[in-house]
Amino acid sequence: MSLHRSRTMSSSSSTAAKKVLNLDSINPRVKAAKYAVRGELAVRSEEYRARLAKGEGKDLPFDTVVAANIGNPQQLDQKPITFFRQVASLLENPGLLEHEDVFTKSLGYKSDVFERARKLLKEVKSVGAYSQSQGAPGIRQSVAEYIERRDGYPANFEDIYLSNGASSGVNTLLHTICARPETGIMVPIPQYPLYTATLSVLHTRCVPYYLNEEHAWGTSLESIRTAYDKAVSEGTDVKAIAVINPGNPTGASLSAEDIKSVLVFAAERGLVVLADEVYQTNVFVGEFISFKKALRDLQKETPEEYDHIELASLHSISKGMVGECGHRGGYFELIGFEPEVAQEVYKFISIQLCPPVIGQCIVEMMVNPPKEGEPSYELYRKEYDGIFNGLKQRAYALYEAFKKMEGVVCDEPQGSMYLFPTIHLPPKAIEQAKKEGREPDEFYCFRMLDATGVCVVPGSGFGQKPGTLHFRTTFLAPGTEWTGRIVKFHQDFVAEFK
Amino acid sequence: MSLHRSRTMSSSSSTAAKKVLNLDSINPRVKAAKYAVRGELAVRSEEYRARLAKGEGKDLPFDTVVAANIGNPQQLDQKPITFFRQVASLLENPGLLEHEDVFTKSLGYKSDVFERARKLLKEVKSVGAYSQSQGAPGIRQSVAEYIERRDGYPANFEDIYLSNGASSGVNTLLHTICARPETGIMVPIPQYPLYTATLSVLHTRCVPYYLNEEHAWGTSLESIRTAYDKAVSEGTDVKAIAVINPGNPTGASLSAEDIKSVLVFAAERGLVVLADEVYQTNVFVGEFISFKKALRDLQKETPEEYDHIELASLHSISKGMVGECGHRGGYFELIGFEPEVAQEVYKFISIQLCPPVIGQCIVEMMVNPPKEGEPSYELYRKEYDGIFNGLKQRAYALYEAFKKMEGVVCDEPQGSMYLFPTIHLPPKAIEQAKKEGREPDEFYCFRMLDATGVCVVPGSGFGQKPGTLHFRTTFLAPGTEWTGRIVKFHQDFVAEFK
Repeated sequence: MSLHRSRTMSSSSSTAAKKVLNLDSINPRVKAAKYAVRGELAVRSEEYRARLAKGEGKDLPFDTVVAANIGNPQQLDQKPITFFRQVASLLENPGLLEHEDVFTKSLGYKSDVFERARKLLKEVKSVGAYSQSQGAPGIRQSVAEYIERRDGYPANFEDIYLSNGASSGVNTLLHTICARPETGIMVPIPQYPLYTATLSVLHTRCVPYYLNEEHAWGTSLESIRTAYDKAVSEGTDVKAIAVINPGNPTGASLSAEDIKSVLVFAAERGLVVLADEVYQTNVFVGEFISFKKALRDLQKETPEEYDHIELASLHSISKGMVGECGHRGGYFELIGFEPEVAQEVYKFISIQLCPPVIGQCIVEMMVNPPKEGEPSYELYRKEYDGIFNGLKQRAYALYEAFKKMEGVVCDEPQGSMYLFPTIHLPPKAIEQAKKEGREPDEFYCFRMLDATGVCVVPGSGFGQKPGTLHFRTTFLAPGTEWTGRIVKFHQDFVAEFK
Repeated sequence: MSLHRSRTMSSSSSTAAKKVLNLDSINPRVKAAKYAVRGELAVRSEEYRARLAKGEGKDLPFDTVVAANIGNPQQLDQKPITFFRQVASLLENPGLLEHEDVFTKSLGYKSDVFERARKLLKEVKSVGAYSQSQGAPGIRQSVAEYIERRDGYPANFEDIYLSNGASSGVNTLLHTICARPETGIMVPIPQYPLYTATLSVLHTRCVPYYLNEEHAWGTSLESIRTAYDKAVSEGTDVKAIAVINPGNPTGASLSAEDIKSVLVFAAERGLVVLADEVYQTNVFVGEFISFKKALRDLQKETPEEYDHIELASLHSISKGMVGECGHRGGYFELIGFEPEVAQEVYKFISIQLCPPVIGQCIVEMMVNPPKEGEPSYELYRKEYDGIFNGLKQRAYALYEAFKKMEGVVCDEPQGSMYLFPTIHLPPKAIEQAKKEGREPDEFYCFRMLDATGVCVVPGSGFGQKPGTLHFRTTFLAPGTEWTGRIVKFHQDFVAEFK
């Protein structure tokens, strides 16, 4: 079953000649867009999975396929947060609210589940009704309060835009900012390829700035400056800088200095700052520092220099301990945007009506979970901490496995859901890759999949400094057996290409 | 509470000068896009609603605001289909599956609810996990089977693309087809403004073709031809024709002849056909004829002439008797598309990961509802027919009310959720509109809102033949009191501008 093939047969040549649409006639910008995370490797892994499911995988050297390519926790063994799904079940079928006794006596629901469901239903009336395009006001108010608690600075619900996952928010922001083919958006390399793919579709310029591999993938002001100057010299109208913090694929948390230097640079050069902060709760080492807080701190010190900064911060229910990718929920906060621009953002999002309402409700619960003393708090805390510790444990187990692999160098895990080790491949392997028409890291990843059933994403999918090779793996898959498969594969690979 | 204003204060002039983003610097294509359905009138109606909710509406000549502007059934009194929401509640909290006895004994769930929930969970594993970008295969298979039952012709699940509502499907298809600024897409006038708004964002050309007001808003081959020829003479590369059937805002069902003539025209001129069929179950008069079936019928007769046609048909869970707008679910079927093009469609949709999974599950239930003999069938049938009859009743009640209104001409209701009466306004009213800087129908609708609390959408929001005026109202709001308000308002309006 091929995932992205539709009809199994191309048309006959006479019919094909009459088609309106072919690779040359469709939108060249769509054609140009690249999004490797769900590309060929992923497709092959799904083919293996399907074969194993049908019992047709006897010739394969593995029994199970391990999806270590996509940050999709609930596709593996991560369970949803009980409170969220209990509330969601009542939101889906509000008639159940009249049977609180049944749920509390026999089904393990506490009273605060019912309270929250009633509150959310009062807000949205029905999860089957369109909400306001910007998202239900009361939910946006909860988000504002979360931001205020997190940063110690006020937030206004009018500046919050709920979205169909953070990906949709990125799409909205880039659509708003990218005015002409010469518009440039600074994008960290390596990056989550939503950015470059969307810039391709918009036919505007990506201005790549290299993250600092030698310094735990921090931002390097020097490399930002270099990238900016080069772009400007090429006639690019650089209008924004995207930062992914904590990083994807790198997993790195930026230091306070790095964050400040981005803001200072943006202030000096007149750049909108796009802070993709969807991994803000996936931090093992140190604390998450929000761009909003860092900006407000700067503004407190020297308002005249930083008051004008435009910042958009994004968050999502897909990551963190929530892991509700399939629900498609998120938000962005606009800080320092002119009202006339915010109105255009509003208009753009209204064309697609509104974000999924049940996803909006899960955003509300993510930012406003059970509090200490509330009936569902204990279980919530236990589950949240359990997931967090489990993720940290797996990250370190994988890190330890990488230490055993010759030529593989990995930073100590800092956060997110990924490790992004550097790989140094034997020259003969690189030659073989070239023979097969593949990037070396891509070749390595295909070999890994074919030998182990483990699917990762080659570094070339995210961008990397020329001459360097990486792959991104999640540490979501349960157990340690699969990491053992990778260690063995790597041993064999190095031996083969000695 | 203003819906689309974010910060309440614009920056000081010195700060404003430093902003990167203002109306002149943002994407001009976003600026150009118009989407009136959620525009100024809707905003004012929400302000009235908010005032009444706070008890601050004593000066208003009405007690309640009636949202007759948006096809949002569950925002009014339409209840969801019980079976769908029972299944959804179990999908959200699969732990409940172990308590089937509690649900069947005390909570009114039948066994087929549990069966369906288990089947869907087997398919998606968790509604919180990303699915394949094209949508879960088993769900797409259900859609294919629905299409096959409906049309009597086979459908392949590989040609089905689940989407975030049909709106997202339209966005995907237009992105794929619109290759250059000269690309043109034929759009019916009046149209649901998603089409023109998206074409603005894409910076490609809208080629409007007028629907035939004198013939129950059918398509007019003559006006299609005229529009096409005019566009071609202007250098437009016309690549597709969009048809909304049943119509929005018109509510009209196209005849078999009209559908055939569009296909014949598309075959002759080389046009992709975009068939927006989201109202296919909202048909009061006659039968819905799908473009797929009509195409297959033509292909059976004369394959050599029609085998090459590319058709995309869209459907949604937002409309019909399902009314699950807030869940954001839908699909499109690609018929006759080259595999290489389908791959590009797949790639484009994969950038935004996947459609909301619970919405995908509701698509599955919409196309595969309880069957006769199954435990939940009786209630499903009763609810479905009840909603259908209620809609038909309300449509006719509104139609009768319009008959009492001088200068208002409305076709007998045919389907969808809307009536789109023609209004002939007194010359003095048109003058006054001009004085206030408003289109006449816009002026009329504002006056209606201010006098009655009923919010509709002026015809200018959808496009109309110059010199004609209309408004679109849904017939979703319960009761007949609100229609009485409109009748009275109109009487007073006509008297005022005599």
